[in-house]
Amino acid sequence: MEVQIAVAKVNKYASSESGDTLEVVERPNGGLSVVLADGQTSGRGAKAVSHLVVRKVIGLLAEGVRDGAAARAASDALYTDKQGKVISTLNIASLDLHSRTIVLTRNNPSPMFVCLGDQIDRRDEESAPLGTSRDVRPLITEIPVQPGLIIVIYTDGLTHAGERRGRPMDVGEAIRAMVEDQDPSPQVLADALLEQAVSLDENRPADDISVLVLKVTARQGDNARRMTVRLPIEGYFK
Amino acid sequence: MEVQIAVAKVNKYASSESGDTLEVVERPNGGLSVVLADGQTSGRGAKAVSHLVVRKVIGLLAEGVRDGAAARAASDALYTDKQGKVISTLNIASLDLHSRTIVLTRNNPSPMFVCLGDQIDRRDEESAPLGTSRDVRPLITEIPVQPGLIIVIYTDGLTHAGERRGRPMDVGEAIRAMVEDQDPSPQVLADALLEQAVSLDENRPADDISVLVLKVTARQGDNARRMTVRLPIEGYFK
Repeated sequence: MEVQIAVAKVNKYASSESGDTLEVVERPNGGLSVVLADGQTSGRGAKAVSHLVVRKVIGLLAEGVRDGAAARAASDALYTDKQGKVISTLNIASLDLHSRTIVLTRNNPSPMFVCLGDQIDRRDEESAPLGTSRDVRPLITEIPVQPGLIIVIYTDGLTHAGERRGRPMDVGEAIRAMVEDQDPSPQVLADALLEQAVSLDENRPADDISVLVLKVTARQGDNARRMTVRLPIEGYFK
Repeated sequence: MEVQIAVAKVNKYASSESGDTLEVVERPNGGLSVVLADGQTSGRGAKAVSHLVVRKVIGLLAEGVRDGAAARAASDALYTDKQGKVISTLNIASLDLHSRTIVLTRNNPSPMFVCLGDQIDRRDEESAPLGTSRDVRPLITEIPVQPGLIIVIYTDGLTHAGERRGRPMDVGEAIRAMVEDQDPSPQVLADALLEQAVSLDENRPADDISVLVLKVTARQGDNARRMTVRLPIEGYFK
């Protein structure tokens, strides 16, 4: 089997800094975790908040702390630092080679999607962001690693895309259209969702948007691990 | 312009854990850094060392500490922890949007390659690994971000590939053959170098091998940032 993870991310229109932070860390007991946070508001302040949350979570995961405990610790740290006045969403998607599961941790009102075969589950149980109170609990979903599994996680920029024009995005329908007919790679799926959102916002995203797709395939290739990062730098340079 | 970074990584044959650790972090003043460490020996002990070094460097870079200072701090921490008895190589490749340069930091006897146009520079100035003494200095190379720039960095598994069989790999020649005739993507280039090394080791790599390629292109696409990770998990699962 192979686990493939893809991310596509844009800034709010005319904003040079994204309030969304995403990082990947190796788990000391095997596997890796992707951590995504969306700080309240946008621009530099939001960036500082999501950066603080992601750094805290990544540091704890790297020490072997379990995902749920890392999320609670980050919430307490944010609550203490900002006295409950600033909040941040958090999603952690982990491949845990010790338990042989995908562990999904969510402190985010935005739902996530879990697809397997013909089944597309929208997981939208109520979930509070970090920093709102002293006893924030994450929602934890654990799924055995199996070929065909697709997880789609995103920040609320995707949910709110098009709302300004009265044409809100139906994320579930967009996923269904892609997954039913084709066998898209995670990057193709993430790019397509992002593209649809940006298009509904008429190419001027009303908020930062991040889309994270994890897919388990049966494909047998070589044993190499691979990573690619693409960072456009137009706008920063003449 | 766009900066593309690709990594390809295999474990030493029959070893379930790589002594090489590679992680990516966002720089708080804009841009990102890729940090690669190779801990002495192989397996679990080497993993712990390279993990310690990468965590230390990543934590400092995330706070805005400059690359050279982060490398020195990691060396001092390793020296203190292991009393000079365990060493680790370190390479940092940073896109610094503040200075508009690529900053390359090296504490690694293995050379690196800097390609621009027809020029392929082998950078092999003497460079000591971290943890060897109290005053380890990194070699720092700063290059303006410009289309066509290609940087190739690797751990010594690549240099030593084929030595067992008396057919050592000529990394410079392999890069030249790829870059002169084609315009390979960084992933294609990294994969080709790794494949050649693994083949020289007769598909049983004598050491962990990591190859990191950074390329600056003039290509104008959309403004999305993208990341893909591929993690084979055969061998862990039945």
